Amino acid sequence: MSEGEGNMADFTDKLKPADPQGPDVLAQERASSNVNIDQLAQHLLSRNDFLARQKRILSILEPIPYFCKKNQLNMARPDRYHLGLARAKTLRRLSLKHGWDRDDYIMADYLTDEMAPYALQATMFATSIREQCNAEQMAYWLPKVENWEIIGCYGQTELGHGSNVKGIECEARWDPKTKQFDIHSPTITASKWWNGALGRTANHAIVVAQLLLPDAKAGGQYRSYGPHQFIVQIRDMKTNKPLDGIVIGDIGPKYGYPGMDNGYMLFDHLKVPHSALLSKYSGVDSEHGTYIKPENPAVVYGSLTFVRAQIIMHARLVLARAVTIAVRYLSIRRQFADRDARDTGAPEQAVLNYPTVQIRILPLLATTFALHYTGEAMYKLYYGTREAIEKSGDFSRLAEMHAASSGLKSLCTTLAADGIETCRRAMGGHGFGGGSGMIALNNEYLSKPTVEGDNWMITQQTAAYLIKRMTAVANSPSMKPKETVDVQFKEFVANKTKTHDHDILGNARELVKAFKHRASYLSYQAYHARVVEKKPWTSLMIQLHRLSRAHSESLLVSNFYTAVFESTPNPPLDATAVGVMKVLFKLFALFTLDASASEFLLSKALTVDRLATVTPAIQDLMTQVRPHAVRLVDAWSVPDYLLESALGSYDGDVYNRLYHKAHKENPLNKLTFNPDWKTEEIVMGEGAENARRRLEALALGTTTGHEQQSGNVKARL
Amino acid sequence: MSEGEGNMADFTDKLKPADPQGPDVLAQERASSNVNIDQLAQHLLSRNDFLARQKRILSILEPIPYFCKKNQLNMARPDRYHLGLARAKTLRRLSLKHGWDRDDYIMADYLTDEMAPYALQATMFATSIREQCNAEQMAYWLPKVENWEIIGCYGQTELGHGSNVKGIECEARWDPKTKQFDIHSPTITASKWWNGALGRTANHAIVVAQLLLPDAKAGGQYRSYGPHQFIVQIRDMKTNKPLDGIVIGDIGPKYGYPGMDNGYMLFDHLKVPHSALLSKYSGVDSEHGTYIKPENPAVVYGSLTFVRAQIIMHARLVLARAVTIAVRYLSIRRQFADRDARDTGAPEQAVLNYPTVQIRILPLLATTFALHYTGEAMYKLYYGTREAIEKSGDFSRLAEMHAASSGLKSLCTTLAADGIETCRRAMGGHGFGGGSGMIALNNEYLSKPTVEGDNWMITQQTAAYLIKRMTAVANSPSMKPKETVDVQFKEFVANKTKTHDHDILGNARELVKAFKHRASYLSYQAYHARVVEKKPWTSLMIQLHRLSRAHSESLLVSNFYTAVFESTPNPPLDATAVGVMKVLFKLFALFTLDASASEFLLSKALTVDRLATVTPAIQDLMTQVRPHAVRLVDAWSVPDYLLESALGSYDGDVYNRLYHKAHKENPLNKLTFNPDWKTEEIVMGEGAENARRRLEALALGTTTGHEQQSGNVKARL
Repeated sequence: MSEGEGNMADFTDKLKPADPQGPDVLAQERASSNVNIDQLAQHLLSRNDFLARQKRILSILEPIPYFCKKNQLNMARPDRYHLGLARAKTLRRLSLKHGWDRDDYIMADYLTDEMAPYALQATMFATSIREQCNAEQMAYWLPKVENWEIIGCYGQTELGHGSNVKGIECEARWDPKTKQFDIHSPTITASKWWNGALGRTANHAIVVAQLLLPDAKAGGQYRSYGPHQFIVQIRDMKTNKPLDGIVIGDIGPKYGYPGMDNGYMLFDHLKVPHSALLSKYSGVDSEHGTYIKPENPAVVYGSLTFVRAQIIMHARLVLARAVTIAVRYLSIRRQFADRDARDTGAPEQAVLNYPTVQIRILPLLATTFALHYTGEAMYKLYYGTREAIEKSGDFSRLAEMHAASSGLKSLCTTLAADGIETCRRAMGGHGFGGGSGMIALNNEYLSKPTVEGDNWMITQQTAAYLIKRMTAVANSPSMKPKETVDVQFKEFVANKTKTHDHDILGNARELVKAFKHRASYLSYQAYHARVVEKKPWTSLMIQLHRLSRAHSESLLVSNFYTAVFESTPNPPLDATAVGVMKVLFKLFALFTLDASASEFLLSKALTVDRLATVTPAIQDLMTQVRPHAVRLVDAWSVPDYLLESALGSYDGDVYNRLYHKAHKENPLNKLTFNPDWKTEEIVMGEGAENARRRLEALALGTTTGHEQQSGNVKARL
Repeated sequence: MSEGEGNMADFTDKLKPADPQGPDVLAQERASSNVNIDQLAQHLLSRNDFLARQKRILSILEPIPYFCKKNQLNMARPDRYHLGLARAKTLRRLSLKHGWDRDDYIMADYLTDEMAPYALQATMFATSIREQCNAEQMAYWLPKVENWEIIGCYGQTELGHGSNVKGIECEARWDPKTKQFDIHSPTITASKWWNGALGRTANHAIVVAQLLLPDAKAGGQYRSYGPHQFIVQIRDMKTNKPLDGIVIGDIGPKYGYPGMDNGYMLFDHLKVPHSALLSKYSGVDSEHGTYIKPENPAVVYGSLTFVRAQIIMHARLVLARAVTIAVRYLSIRRQFADRDARDTGAPEQAVLNYPTVQIRILPLLATTFALHYTGEAMYKLYYGTREAIEKSGDFSRLAEMHAASSGLKSLCTTLAADGIETCRRAMGGHGFGGGSGMIALNNEYLSKPTVEGDNWMITQQTAAYLIKRMTAVANSPSMKPKETVDVQFKEFVANKTKTHDHDILGNARELVKAFKHRASYLSYQAYHARVVEKKPWTSLMIQLHRLSRAHSESLLVSNFYTAVFESTPNPPLDATAVGVMKVLFKLFALFTLDASASEFLLSKALTVDRLATVTPAIQDLMTQVRPHAVRLVDAWSVPDYLLESALGSYDGDVYNRLYHKAHKENPLNKLTFNPDWKTEEIVMGEGAENARRRLEALALGTTTGHEQQSGNVKARL
């Protein structure tokens, strides 16, 4: 086996990057700001003991070879899954060894940074068992799940149906004679699809199927009672092969999630017992074959909100990760001297000093904090609402919470997904390379605008809520406000023809008012179109989406404002940090306003003349943020292990890391090839016939990438 | 070897998707429009005999196993390069066999849809030989290049320098004694980096290095004459190992280009002869060691413009491909019944009927045509300018051409790159899957906003030109217009305080005027800030970028307008198609205006009241486009082979294709795994020790993914 030139000592071993050295640049950047990084880190990341936990779990994972990430982009998909499963098993063993709690496990998942084949076990699978089982079912299943005696997945979405759960085609037909359900996939589109851990791993599944019961009044014809959850064993516990009557497989490679076996599954009249139907809330009377109705389905929405608050908090860390890489690298990267410099030998400028780079990165840096304070506010709203429900049966804030969480899930995941790509492009060529650390980040996160409620679809829920509230206010302008948003709606309705021209540069509070005014205006327009003019819902969808975005932006801005202008920071922040936060607030708010400026003008929150002052103000704010940029990203405390980025590592040794990664770690450099087109031989010394057979099998997919090599592996290496 | 459940006949073989069937839906869609697809296809794609050529080359490539794409996403990076090289060799052989010309080769590249290791041979490498060699060099090198006796690459960018070519660090120092150049990399950042075909393939390179000559006036001290091109043999012609004094390798995996070996290269005082310096325009007097200056460097800009016109024409096809997939799939995909439907059993709607989906896809469909007409206009400008230069030495349009091409390159590649992702997200879950055909498309195209001039950087060139023209006009408002843009600038300067409020809905011409007015306004603002107020260039960069975008949008809009309102279509179009083009023009223009509405308000091209009418107008235009959507994408004639998409294939058999791809073609489904965390065994029957060794090597990258398997491959399969 030839080691290739990369592994031998050579003259490049003693070379350094051109000055200035990255570590020196970052040291200087860190010296130019007096933001207290540790204090700010505690302020942002003390919930649930995040920082200490991160440190503890990281020290366990990082030395374990399986968790090394550096070769991931070189691997074939089947190997990525193999490794994903090995990692998942290892995490389970580590959790027992170290006595990890649920939060420790979540932290380990966050740090390993991939969806792994056990991801559903403690989440959707266990949640269904806990929340949907009756006492008897719980006693039987919960220990098996908690002891990981069975490995589970959650089978809801289908090839033909995702968001519209009511439309799923998989059927569970009650047979009164045998007292069994017959689970069946009548079509190809009824195939379960996308379900994580189903493809190769799980031996049990929660299967969501249309519950079909015979209707005595209709002569025994079957009628659907909608989607219900069933627990079904799907694979043999010894061989892990699918049981008879079930076809299962992995759906193939995706944008991201290479280590996860998202699967498909179809049933050919599979018989399952009465006890398979999870029956805490609803069920089937096995004697009469009649339906037992659920009592209060509203509680389901509560946990959805919690999931969405987590999504926002996750979005801030994901965005912080992209911004960390961008800020560090762009502080170090030099490009072009100042065009106005008289000296032709003027030094090249740090790329982050260019306003055209700042305008892409610094508002995103501000966005990480905006997301943080809104995530915090959502947790507070969630816990408050839950307490009200549990203590006094008060469901009154559920609608507000659900509306806020829908619009915010849509907006925040869009901001993070788009923000990653903005950061990547700002890093030019190296942003496109594997050393950026952006590839996996981007590929994984691009699922988020779709999952847990499609970002364009769920905004309808926010808009519907706002229309409802505006209808109440418009019908009775002197009403006592019942929900938070009523206050701003009342104010709007009382002054709806007035031009406000809020003093958005002079006064931070006026900025918040401008956002509320615009959201109220769009709510009123939507209310008028739908309720007064009675326009079809579908025809208003674009308008409703914009309304949800406006309202959600208003929430982000006002939560940020409240946190940094009207509260005592808790955990504490010193005056310097608070001062920087106030600048970041203004930058976030003005940048957001500028991006939808015409809506502020149409709503008369602003005049055109006022708008003309916004762009220079944004540039001025960026100049104020610039010296603190490196310390601000440091405060997000994203470890190098998670960044997996030559460009973004804490030490700033960008070019040595990039070079080392290519020259010492790239497996392709171990092989020497034959570039001559006149021969079919590809790898030097391989032989044309071998080359052809191997490559054809790879191209046609008749190999997993391994078996073809066994014969000629020596010739290649 | 277990075949896995996927390859056996099973009960799913006889299942169909739920109605309506995709092919029936597309048949209906095609029947609902009378746009003549063939005629429109000829209109769009007859330049250079594109359609016939596509058909001819496709019929050659498609049956060849190497060119099968279906397994690409499953493959390890080293295998992707192996296959890429094999494909490149095959293309070369096919081109000889079938007597392909340059356009045939380009078509084959377009259809195979990957950057392959020979990509530089006929492009940058051959171009440098042809354009930079003196007669003697040409006689020596050109036959070797044209006969592919040597395989070449182009080494310009470095680890530390991309866009700023003047800053590259690689040195070529003339030694007057030996009459040789000493090529040297003084730092790690001087490493060549990103250069395609360098990493594993090429045996020769054009190396761009600072030409250093001793300065007699300064006592023989060396002085740089800037970057120059040298031709250098880099690898042994027999072993393909790097020559002594050179370190070379592949830089590792990237976002896209898996089949291409983008490389790095450093020199340790490599000696090359005087003849290595390509000396058509400039050179070194070997006797006196003095510099021979080039005569007219402006011609370089001409070919840059040609490359950029090609980029625009490519962008239209890339965007057409994304839109083709989206339009076909979203016509077929059903989701939710109409919310206002009274019947609870109302059918689900085609997703493309929702305005929130239309607003994402249909303006992009319009954009494909906008790009087309501007691409055509750029070709015309290029050929006209070249003719003027060659026939009468008239360089007068060069500046205009360069300015237009810079701004348009930036805008058009941004539109296409963002458009791909917009289409992908609109397709929800299946858009994230490998069956979408979007993954490779996206990964490849995301390089385009960076290469051939970074999209944020090159807009300065457009802005600088506009400021120069505005300065001329402002200084002399009654001047005779010298360049195209002078006309609109004169009109603007004469009326610059007036509110125009163009009748953008009533009159297509007024829409064009509104775009020109806004661009002129921003030009005037930039002129005033830079020339009158003398503000630093850097401080204006954001403003300048916006100006370039505004001007480029104005070019897109006015070229589209001229083509469909003021010209006789050539090749011809019937009245129906022209009518649809007019609607598409309005949709593109209004959508583009709406996205930057505040600039139109600030410039007084519009009033706020007028703006309020734009959104309903866009929705109305989309309703007019909707029935023609499928036929319009059909006209772009993107073959299924290029789409490589279950969602977007011509026949619309979406769900059968998705299912078949997963169930019959996914190699992961050939392996059975052991999900039990209590054992280390991963693949059933593998043995724990084997599993651990293999997976650790994969994780650590100490394997190319092949050699570890040779021992235990039987256990795994």
